Amino acid sequence: MFLADARAGAAFCLALGAADWRYGAYALGGAVLGSSTARLLHVARARVETGLEGFNSCLLALCFAVFLDAGRPSTVLLATAGCAVVTVVTAAVVRLLRVWNLPSLTLPYCLLASAVTIAAPAFGRIWPHGGSLAALPGAASGATALPPGELGRAFFRNLSQIFFLDEWYVGLLLLAGLLLASRTAALVACAGSATGILTAWALGAPAARIADGTLGYNAVLVALALCGVFLTAAPATLLYALLGAATATAVTPAVAHLLAPSGGHAFTWPFVLTTLAFLTAARSFPRLTGRAPGADGTSRQPAGAPAPAA
Amino acid sequence: MFLADARAGAAFCLALGAADWRYGAYALGGAVLGSSTARLLHVARARVETGLEGFNSCLLALCFAVFLDAGRPSTVLLATAGCAVVTVVTAAVVRLLRVWNLPSLTLPYCLLASAVTIAAPAFGRIWPHGGSLAALPGAASGATALPPGELGRAFFRNLSQIFFLDEWYVGLLLLAGLLLASRTAALVACAGSATGILTAWALGAPAARIADGTLGYNAVLVALALCGVFLTAAPATLLYALLGAATATAVTPAVAHLLAPSGGHAFTWPFVLTTLAFLTAARSFPRLTGRAPGADGTSRQPAGAPAPAA
Amino acid sequence: MFLADARAGAAFCLALGAADWRYGAYALGGAVLGSSTARLLHVARARVETGLEGFNSCLLALCFAVFLDAGRPSTVLLATAGCAVVTVVTAAVVRLLRVWNLPSLTLPYCLLASAVTIAAPAFGRIWPHGGSLAALPGAASGATALPPGELGRAFFRNLSQIFFLDEWYVGLLLLAGLLLASRTAALVACAGSATGILTAWALGAPAARIADGTLGYNAVLVALALCGVFLTAAPATLLYALLGAATATAVTPAVAHLLAPSGGHAFTWPFVLTTLAFLTAARSFPRLTGRAPGADGTSRQPAGAPAPAA
Repeated sequence: MFLADARAGAAFCLALGAADWRYGAYALGGAVLGSSTARLLHVARARVETGLEGFNSCLLALCFAVFLDAGRPSTVLLATAGCAVVTVVTAAVVRLLRVWNLPSLTLPYCLLASAVTIAAPAFGRIWPHGGSLAALPGAASGATALPPGELGRAFFRNLSQIFFLDEWYVGLLLLAGLLLASRTAALVACAGSATGILTAWALGAPAARIADGTLGYNAVLVALALCGVFLTAAPATLLYALLGAATATAVTPAVAHLLAPSGGHAFTWPFVLTTLAFLTAARSFPRLTGRAPGADGTSRQPAGAPAPAA
Repeated sequence: MFLADARAGAAFCLALGAADWRYGAYALGGAVLGSSTARLLHVARARVETGLEGFNSCLLALCFAVFLDAGRPSTVLLATAGCAVVTVVTAAVVRLLRVWNLPSLTLPYCLLASAVTIAAPAFGRIWPHGGSLAALPGAASGATALPPGELGRAFFRNLSQIFFLDEWYVGLLLLAGLLLASRTAALVACAGSATGILTAWALGAPAARIADGTLGYNAVLVALALCGVFLTAAPATLLYALLGAATATAVTPAVAHLLAPSGGHAFTWPFVLTTLAFLTAARSFPRLTGRAPGADGTSRQPAGAPAPAA
Repeated sequence: MFLADARAGAAFCLALGAADWRYGAYALGGAVLGSSTARLLHVARARVETGLEGFNSCLLALCFAVFLDAGRPSTVLLATAGCAVVTVVTAAVVRLLRVWNLPSLTLPYCLLASAVTIAAPAFGRIWPHGGSLAALPGAASGATALPPGELGRAFFRNLSQIFFLDEWYVGLLLLAGLLLASRTAALVACAGSATGILTAWALGAPAARIADGTLGYNAVLVALALCGVFLTAAPATLLYALLGAATATAVTPAVAHLLAPSGGHAFTWPFVLTTLAFLTAARSFPRLTGRAPGADGTSRQPAGAPAPAA
């Protein structure tokens, strides 16, 4: 499913199911639906089989399960419709970014997830909460000292928050899944998570925000994408990837504050924006890409792109 | 004027005049001014004559008449200046979107109308209301059951709201204008309006929001653009266009909520965003475009583009 | 440093130092750091030497000094990190805009300055103020009559506000620096400043907002960029540039209102957006560019681009 590696996919499903079996069902259903719609519309078979058409719809279905009410039939129906629309949006994003030879990452998912969560309060049948969540962003408050016990949990929650989950052992399971697919990827993910925690602590983020992983999951994704997936893993690209991970951590509250007055969430926007910027820039730095420029979106994506989405 | 069909243009003017003669005057003046500025700057004659340079300025002038005070001389002056600037913005948008071979639609109008309505409260001489309209978006409230009488009015208001008008008979006149130009276009507009109402009702929008047409006018525009104008009318494209119409309906509150804290309006942003995404994606779906890819922006636009703007 | 003219650079440094020596130090340090990072990453030597890689980092460091606390060590560290990241963002923006042959202007600076100022309240160690500055935008209030004494000061503050400074004599020093580099540039800057004041007054902006220069600095930058730097200075382009300057003035509160609920500032966004739109459009107006299209970003920028950033 993810990573073009069936074992890793099984581990991820298990990890999701460990938190809530309905989340696992939504994610699996989303992946299947997204792939089927793409096949129905005669999208190139290679893209569908490597899971490229499935991971955005998988994330979208999971997002609906978490932010709306996973138990309502209306959420199931909405997720079904969303999986059809995300196929269209993916096709559009792939074509728009092809001009710069950039991969689509989780941009289709971010676009639709933001649109639906921001629009949802206007629709009584799908909105489970009483009022709107829109609010002006406030300044940080609370202690900044992180107890050692929380440090470890923050480290794993940076992985589990990719799937909106608070449980640190889900992060551990995800890391195990990554390890099954590639040892380098697992090491890079650890470096990314550590960079995220370090950056957030150095900037003075409240300890509670660091511990719950909401400031660091984009750092993990950026590190994975920039060191191993779209640029070859090497000491120079690792440094570059960790600069990217630190940037994504600092950018995360910016995106959250931008969308807060409308009731939106950061999702993986910081990952998408930072990675696209750093990938585009990489081609201007001869020291980074000793070989020919790396990310060519279409041909390389099947092998690795799903990793950052996982 | 619109639709490259003089009779349809006359019907539209009549429809606007029926609501308020000043609105008709603004719209007509805007179209004339936009075309003149373009001619003054030596824009290609073909674009000007088919009305391509006029419809964005026509909509912009009308928007100023509705959202500011139509009776003030300052509004007339601002609309005049706006018509000059919209010509520049149109030229820029056409060049930017040419990379993807996409039509400019009403994007220039949306950009300027949003900029002016959001900036207006800062300028005492043009702002007719007391305070700013900026507010955090709230959750929907009110009954969701739509009385049958309102259903019919909603159906026509989905057309009249394209021109910011509440009167359902304006929508009827507009539909008559469309029918004069093309029977297919009129049928597609009806299907789009029905899809908009159905989607909004299924998602649980308050009946009042459905009845006043503010949730459905983008659906009509998307259906027109995707079935007949930029893609050939056929059963497959009709289905695709109605999926687009449903998407635009769901996206409308998202845009409204995004701009509400700044005091902005949705205008035809949902139409522009949805249509551009669906048009770009259409080229990746062989089942949709049996023939060579459809929307090539420059060469096809003269014949049909004005329709979605109408 | 700026303008590829050492004397002008010295005058600018003097102007900044006149307001606060620390601001001068930040700006100088930012320029040096930005250039060094670019050299370290083996960016083309020509770009670095003409100062192209330095002016965005110079503005960014200055912005941190003004909006955060110039005296804190954390601000110095953040500015250092920001200068490394802005090099990456500049490389990305240059590549993204190359598709349309557009210059990067101060877009990299705007992106990072907005991200950091919006994110800052989430980080206790870098945020010097108590609470968040996010607020819903309000309507204008206050007298609109501008006393003659304030008129002169507004004229010069439109220049000094480019560097966030209120002191009118800083603007005078900047104008002197421009005059040293090019007499035409100084005249165009004056015309831009006058257009900014006139537009703001005509639209009914409160006198206090005109006098402090916050409504007019984008007009100066747009006038400089469109008449002399990216389009050849001529009567036709001067008119076009002043239309651009008026547009940027009207757009400034729109950007400010859009970012206000998130706690952001307008920075030079209005300049960037207006100039990019007017430059792209210029190629469609044969009357403006008698010769071949002007702004080709890479080859012409070394000679003039720093001017608008100054």
